[in-house]
Amino acid sequence: MPAEQPQWVIDARRAVGDRIRVRRLHLNMTQETLAHASGIDRSTIQRMEAGAEMKLSHLLHVAAALRVHVTDLLHG
Amino acid sequence: MPAEQPQWVIDARRAVGDRIRVRRLHLNMTQETLAHASGIDRSTIQRMEAGAEMKLSHLLHVAAALRVHVTDLLHG
Repeated sequence: MPAEQPQWVIDARRAVGDRIRVRRLHLNMTQETLAHASGIDRSTIQRMEAGAEMKLSHLLHVAAALRVHVTDLLHG
Repeated sequence: MPAEQPQWVIDARRAVGDRIRVRRLHLNMTQETLAHASGIDRSTIQRMEAGAEMKLSHLLHVAAALRVHVTDLLHG
């Protein structure tokens, strides 16, 4: 697979990042707070919210820290 | 984050891998066929089905090739 992803995959990742940010702000958490709660580096949280490539494990940790099911971050 | 994941994350990844395999077999696809349909290396498909760490983009490509929504591979 080429390093560059098709637009629909980039869009889907961005939508996931948007949902993470919306949920985080809904809980009045900073990226720093979410990083601490999930055990993931703040820079990784930042990249995830920007829609960069992300590991399934990171997504699972973030969902748990945001108290949602991982599917809630992928719906839409 | 440590390289080793907690058991619940390992279990969740394995469940995703199981759902990929079950759906693939339901469609009478081999790992090779799924690799071709999704544009992902067969060795990566094999690792995903075994529950290894996986990229969100790969999960999205596999879900599309299996004609399910990515959330269908994460529910349960």
